Amino acid sequence: MPLLRSWVDSANAPDHPFPLNNLPCGVFSRPGDEPRCGVAIGDFVLDVAVLEDSGVLNLADAPLLDVPFWNEVMEAGPQVWAALRSRLMELLGEGSVGRATVEPHLVPLAEVALHMPFLVSEYTDFYAGRHHATNVGTMFRGADNALPPNWLHIPIGYNGRASSVVVSGTPVRRPWGQVKGPEQAVPAFQPSRRFDIELELGAVVGTPSDGPVTVAEADAMIFGYVLLNDWSARDIQAWEYQPLGPFQAKATATTISPWIVTRAALEPFRCSTPPREVPLLPHLQEPGPMLYDIALEVGLTPEGGRETVIARTNYREMYYSAAQQLAHHTTSGCPMNTGDLLGSGTISGATKEARGSLLELSWGGKEPIAVDGGSRSFIEDGDTLELRGTCQGDGYVIGFGACSGRVLPALPDPYRRP
Amino acid sequence: MPLLRSWVDSANAPDHPFPLNNLPCGVFSRPGDEPRCGVAIGDFVLDVAVLEDSGVLNLADAPLLDVPFWNEVMEAGPQVWAALRSRLMELLGEGSVGRATVEPHLVPLAEVALHMPFLVSEYTDFYAGRHHATNVGTMFRGADNALPPNWLHIPIGYNGRASSVVVSGTPVRRPWGQVKGPEQAVPAFQPSRRFDIELELGAVVGTPSDGPVTVAEADAMIFGYVLLNDWSARDIQAWEYQPLGPFQAKATATTISPWIVTRAALEPFRCSTPPREVPLLPHLQEPGPMLYDIALEVGLTPEGGRETVIARTNYREMYYSAAQQLAHHTTSGCPMNTGDLLGSGTISGATKEARGSLLELSWGGKEPIAVDGGSRSFIEDGDTLELRGTCQGDGYVIGFGACSGRVLPALPDPYRRP
Repeated sequence: MPLLRSWVDSANAPDHPFPLNNLPCGVFSRPGDEPRCGVAIGDFVLDVAVLEDSGVLNLADAPLLDVPFWNEVMEAGPQVWAALRSRLMELLGEGSVGRATVEPHLVPLAEVALHMPFLVSEYTDFYAGRHHATNVGTMFRGADNALPPNWLHIPIGYNGRASSVVVSGTPVRRPWGQVKGPEQAVPAFQPSRRFDIELELGAVVGTPSDGPVTVAEADAMIFGYVLLNDWSARDIQAWEYQPLGPFQAKATATTISPWIVTRAALEPFRCSTPPREVPLLPHLQEPGPMLYDIALEVGLTPEGGRETVIARTNYREMYYSAAQQLAHHTTSGCPMNTGDLLGSGTISGATKEARGSLLELSWGGKEPIAVDGGSRSFIEDGDTLELRGTCQGDGYVIGFGACSGRVLPALPDPYRRP
Repeated sequence: MPLLRSWVDSANAPDHPFPLNNLPCGVFSRPGDEPRCGVAIGDFVLDVAVLEDSGVLNLADAPLLDVPFWNEVMEAGPQVWAALRSRLMELLGEGSVGRATVEPHLVPLAEVALHMPFLVSEYTDFYAGRHHATNVGTMFRGADNALPPNWLHIPIGYNGRASSVVVSGTPVRRPWGQVKGPEQAVPAFQPSRRFDIELELGAVVGTPSDGPVTVAEADAMIFGYVLLNDWSARDIQAWEYQPLGPFQAKATATTISPWIVTRAALEPFRCSTPPREVPLLPHLQEPGPMLYDIALEVGLTPEGGRETVIARTNYREMYYSAAQQLAHHTTSGCPMNTGDLLGSGTISGATKEARGSLLELSWGGKEPIAVDGGSRSFIEDGDTLELRGTCQGDGYVIGFGACSGRVLPALPDPYRRP
């Protein structure tokens, strides 16, 4: 599919993240105003809430966009998603007769603040990148036992914490936690010394389920995708995670990018999961390509310094797709809801430079990596970590917007309120 | 504290679960009516929503009880909780001048259906019963390595799934899942053959947190408690839980009792956690008694058969209190919200008859237990499992109401909708 031209000139630049082909969904506010739903187009955000209110957008019998989150649109289902996309293309396309109606409701992106684009119902984090699982397994259990026995048969996942999902730009406070190294006799309660990122893609569930769903049905339930950084305190995790999995190590924050890139916008970039080493059971088999070709990178900027790109990889490296993960999530009958967020798991590639966490990049701290003005094994206070993602189309790109967070120093005493 | 006498005669019986001392919070409906908030007193439920609407109950500037869940009262905080309890005691107490106003709004419990008493924000399940952890650890890792190294230092927990929490009386469908025993070369997708209960107490978070809280602050955040059965598919869990913990094995359903017994009603029954084998770090130490003396039992009724009580234990057997669990839950900065539900972990006692799961009672299926008309290693289709809990006061009891669920057969094909 080629670039779809818009009368919004900036959207037609071949490297602009928000061409007419994209139309990602976010929530914005002007200074002093309340947050409201918007769609990015070129250098602007279109105030779709006002367009619905005035009848220019007519999605359902009752308003869906009169709230500062996209959940009502998501719950309305694929027909409404398609109708919205089609109508926006009509209104924003080159030569549109609707231009005069719409143009007053374009707000420059430079003038707005961005907020959480949806209410997160529940958050699940997966472990579906083979290179990541192999790297971590090799560090902790040796190369011969790197992949757990179940790994090639089910997309391993665990429930995370929805309350700590935040939007890009929210500062992240280094957590305290209980830690104990093998050389200590008893644990200590202290700020994390091995605070890390996880480069992931997040799938946003649009329509709910009641009972097990197939992989194809699961794919149809997904409204769109965001970049996702699952901040991880490796030292807290190492002490707490046996036998019931990660808990407080992952509960400080999970940052997502501010725009939900819809599944429709990603369609041209579908690609297949890698060949299966062992056949999957029928209920997890994919009826077609379910991954996407999304180039990803991570930048680290020390306080007052310049950014170093520390990792470059691609979402197509995953072994399991979000649709497979969502299908697995329902096998027990577990109801899935509008606004559920599924993290892909850390996306690492085959090469050293393609690793999606500092744990892997520095190989557990043994091989610090170079950054502007020094080196890093894990995150230092004041560092800003930014994830970026791009699909390269035919004369255009689809961008996700940055997924960024700066790490603040731990509180001197977490129980003494300022 | 003695029995507080009410003009509702049935509430004064020394063995009635709902005396004036209790006043648990639920959501009820009459046939054909919408669900609404109510408080149990004797054989009745008091329609508190109508009392607020008419000004007899005056809790806040805006109504808190005009919705079919208790979250708004919970969020309003301890002063409102105390004011509500105090006003209801006044209205329902023997000799109350308010009797004529209130009496028309008593609805016989026999005539109502009970619903989820609150909206579950997120659900966390802990593993804080020492006898349970030791039993399970002995079965899986041997007696010498029964307790994981971290167990005596932190209340181990994992995030569960809020969407599958259901109220007592909701049937539970036996789940399908991926399983693989040590004797099989490859996994199979089949109905669970080791479906089980976990006898737990659930703590309901009333007020939210922002940053780490002390154990005393955590205790003050808790609105009340429910009985909780965390249905568990042991065969699915065994295959999936390494390395990231239980996932689909616990996602079919979690049943809670329909009445939130408030912390205020439980005050006379406070008791201490057992002596610490190793000292806890300061942030997890308790400023006073944080457990409760709650006698618990589990009944199993085969389809068409009679009930057998298969376990009797007490909540005071726990090693960690809900307040300690909640404090630990915030150490990373994880925000806790109104409506968060914390499962205590399986409550087993020291004796064989005091074990809170069939896994323990039948010792992994090796020692089936006797029930009416046969024996059980795990749950069979048609079995009803019921948890009950009682605090024995001075001439009265505090009851929780039953936490019950009947297990339906697995679907013949989970992907073929009826």
